[in-house]
Amino acid sequence: MEEESLIERFDKILTSAKIYEYGKYPVKGCGIWLPYGFEIRQRVIEIIREVLYKTGHKEVLLPMLIPKDMLEKEAKHIAGFLEQVYWVTKGGTTKLDIELALRPTSETAMTYVFKDRISSYRDLPLKVFQIVSIFRYETEATRPMIRVREVTTFKEAFTFHESREDALLQFEEAYNAYKEIFDRLGIPYITPERPAWDRFPGAEITVTFDTILPDGKTLQIGSVHYLGQSFSKVFDAKFMKKNGEYDWLYMLSYGISERAVASLIIHYADDTGAILLPSIAPIQIVIVPIYYEYNKAEISKYANEIKEILEIAGYKVILDDDPDKTPGEKFYEWERAGIPIRIEVGPKELKERKVTIATRLRNKSVIELDALFKSLKSALIEMETKLREKIRNEMFSRIERVKKVSDLENIINSGKVAMFNICSNEECGMHVEESVKGTRFIGYDAKQRIKGFCIVCSKETEKIGYLAKKY
Amino acid sequence: MEEESLIERFDKILTSAKIYEYGKYPVKGCGIWLPYGFEIRQRVIEIIREVLYKTGHKEVLLPMLIPKDMLEKEAKHIAGFLEQVYWVTKGGTTKLDIELALRPTSETAMTYVFKDRISSYRDLPLKVFQIVSIFRYETEATRPMIRVREVTTFKEAFTFHESREDALLQFEEAYNAYKEIFDRLGIPYITPERPAWDRFPGAEITVTFDTILPDGKTLQIGSVHYLGQSFSKVFDAKFMKKNGEYDWLYMLSYGISERAVASLIIHYADDTGAILLPSIAPIQIVIVPIYYEYNKAEISKYANEIKEILEIAGYKVILDDDPDKTPGEKFYEWERAGIPIRIEVGPKELKERKVTIATRLRNKSVIELDALFKSLKSALIEMETKLREKIRNEMFSRIERVKKVSDLENIINSGKVAMFNICSNEECGMHVEESVKGTRFIGYDAKQRIKGFCIVCSKETEKIGYLAKKY
Repeated sequence: MEEESLIERFDKILTSAKIYEYGKYPVKGCGIWLPYGFEIRQRVIEIIREVLYKTGHKEVLLPMLIPKDMLEKEAKHIAGFLEQVYWVTKGGTTKLDIELALRPTSETAMTYVFKDRISSYRDLPLKVFQIVSIFRYETEATRPMIRVREVTTFKEAFTFHESREDALLQFEEAYNAYKEIFDRLGIPYITPERPAWDRFPGAEITVTFDTILPDGKTLQIGSVHYLGQSFSKVFDAKFMKKNGEYDWLYMLSYGISERAVASLIIHYADDTGAILLPSIAPIQIVIVPIYYEYNKAEISKYANEIKEILEIAGYKVILDDDPDKTPGEKFYEWERAGIPIRIEVGPKELKERKVTIATRLRNKSVIELDALFKSLKSALIEMETKLREKIRNEMFSRIERVKKVSDLENIINSGKVAMFNICSNEECGMHVEESVKGTRFIGYDAKQRIKGFCIVCSKETEKIGYLAKKY
Repeated sequence: MEEESLIERFDKILTSAKIYEYGKYPVKGCGIWLPYGFEIRQRVIEIIREVLYKTGHKEVLLPMLIPKDMLEKEAKHIAGFLEQVYWVTKGGTTKLDIELALRPTSETAMTYVFKDRISSYRDLPLKVFQIVSIFRYETEATRPMIRVREVTTFKEAFTFHESREDALLQFEEAYNAYKEIFDRLGIPYITPERPAWDRFPGAEITVTFDTILPDGKTLQIGSVHYLGQSFSKVFDAKFMKKNGEYDWLYMLSYGISERAVASLIIHYADDTGAILLPSIAPIQIVIVPIYYEYNKAEISKYANEIKEILEIAGYKVILDDDPDKTPGEKFYEWERAGIPIRIEVGPKELKERKVTIATRLRNKSVIELDALFKSLKSALIEMETKLREKIRNEMFSRIERVKKVSDLENIINSGKVAMFNICSNEECGMHVEESVKGTRFIGYDAKQRIKGFCIVCSKETEKIGYLAKKY
């Protein structure tokens, strides 16, 4: 699948499922979360929060405006962002004394705020996060949810530690927390460690979570950075150690953007529309009554009865009794929205005390009302398991092991990500990247080790690298 | 209580209870929600959402940036805001073609977005809301949470209707929803209908929710506006009526700001610190173990046992076993944070299988472990009821019925809000306002009617008005 057709399909789904409106609002790169999309987004946020809370992260909220001199304090940092920052220069008709940036990311503000709240090792570790809008003045072509100017759903965590060792232990915890989050969301991923020449400004180690979309391009959905003391030194953020000496704080930052929501929708969709995992769907079941005027009352009553018992059982259910739409229109609408289960109740079902269950994967069966719970439960579990496995397999089938540099181009052009042994030399990484136009050497797998020989210099190495086209 | 001392005390509580940091961040009028404050804020948001969801409002999220020409479309609207809008003028080093406002409020953007999503009466009513940051370039002195430049917790609802009648029914629903929200939050209020000369720009009817703080000044915590067709006309937002004709949409907007959180804290606090209603507190119970080295293990075990059974019972509990603090320091810290209940467990309690319960209102009792649930439940209910009643009575005792204009000054200067019969003539309203320096005629009670005579012109009237100093 080509990028254009993938994005077009994605955009169509966002529109037809009423998830997100894009391209109409007169500020480029800004989308609108419609009610149904907002619920999906909330579900994603809920899972992120659950995992971060249980691992001891505390939620905070910092100002959106960052003064220019604060942002500039970390010179490496600002260099990477300068051309992408929106600046507030006026309040009313008054020119501001100092220009204010719309938060592009919060390393500087977080360091500034928390350095005064940490005096000694007793206050450490400190682990905070916020879920906020960040802004990038993107000069490239924008894409709904994927490359926007206002990222409305950016989860950014910051942790402060007393030593490099503690920070690196936290790196592992953050990595595992992200694994849990993306696993629960059903988004498959690879986790390359970025090469030194392609890291987040200010970071000493960067591991990203990348998912491979159906067009074979990778989409970065999360990242974990070990910042060392780079930010704490410029802000002189010191603390007293156990031995009474002072040192600068060791820091991590890690983020997940609304690309997570985008990839969720892109991976699972089919040609009809969105498909939502039962565990993610804000609404699991839609009941569509099928009636004529003469039997409307009876069938509505039966449909409502079913709705009530399903709600008592804890399902999120809607009963679509819109009189202005035909059952067929409703079927189509809810299919496009990706609701996992549709229950149809008509005269036949009423008479026999049965219901028709249709899954979003187009399995249809008529069952006794008495068997409803059991059937629903197994239908939902089956759907959840099958879908997760299918998407996981599909994504990993987009990775192809490559042994020779000369094979890279064909693999990439066939819509895949290339995986190969590679040593840690920058020259070798750059060489593969330059060997296929439009690709990036996205890094060394953070966990996987396979014995072999560097694809470029043939040196023995256990490192695995990835070459891909990127979003 | 004077304004300065009230705000100073409020600020001290925010700091000592670690709710909100203010005045340190280098952008004036921007505060930081610390973890504990964030939890209180979330609790407030949760209640707002619950009430709005159950009354059929759908949550959405619109872009934060509003282009200047969109904001200017409603001339009356912008006139009221022009001097208070922050403008983004640059992206990187590039001057933007059109300046972008940081959302001061969303009437224009909401009308623009939803006019295309409403084609006929079948799409109506449409009721949406969002919880977002809004920005005001305040030129007056700023106050933590109360008068800030970034209001981080602004709930704004917008509804669209097919007739004035429907919109006015919704006005009543919105009013009742707000009553429920503030009642659940335990914030007492009066609900004046703003006089015509002091309304939100673009509104035809405005009713506000104002609470009276201990210094006798009113703080507006919510507002409901009937916008009529003022916004739909400038955006040409039309829909097809049942009879096939077209008309402009009838609209409402209503908002609640983070002043709700501020008033919650201000009303209930005492000289020691915050006091949180059990139903609002993110943590209801703190357990403080009291031990020496020799009995630490046993007492910790007992404390943990109590924590577990309380958590199973659904209480939100923390066990403060910080080894670096004395029990006395912990008592003081959690008192200032306003946690409703403290449970102390020391050697005596352990030996007798008892616990000591101390409420934030300083009632202390020693009870059998077996009686824990019952005692806790009644302690929490009593606290909840007493506190709510106390705050309600205190607030209403700050309103004084006045019969003569010449009495207004004394009443206001004694730290009260004056209430009086007044007719609907603008001259009479202006007259009372001008009779005491620094006051506002905040309007006519939206519900209460009492037979009497206008305080100014002596005309017979059932209307009740309020004169107050305002935040």
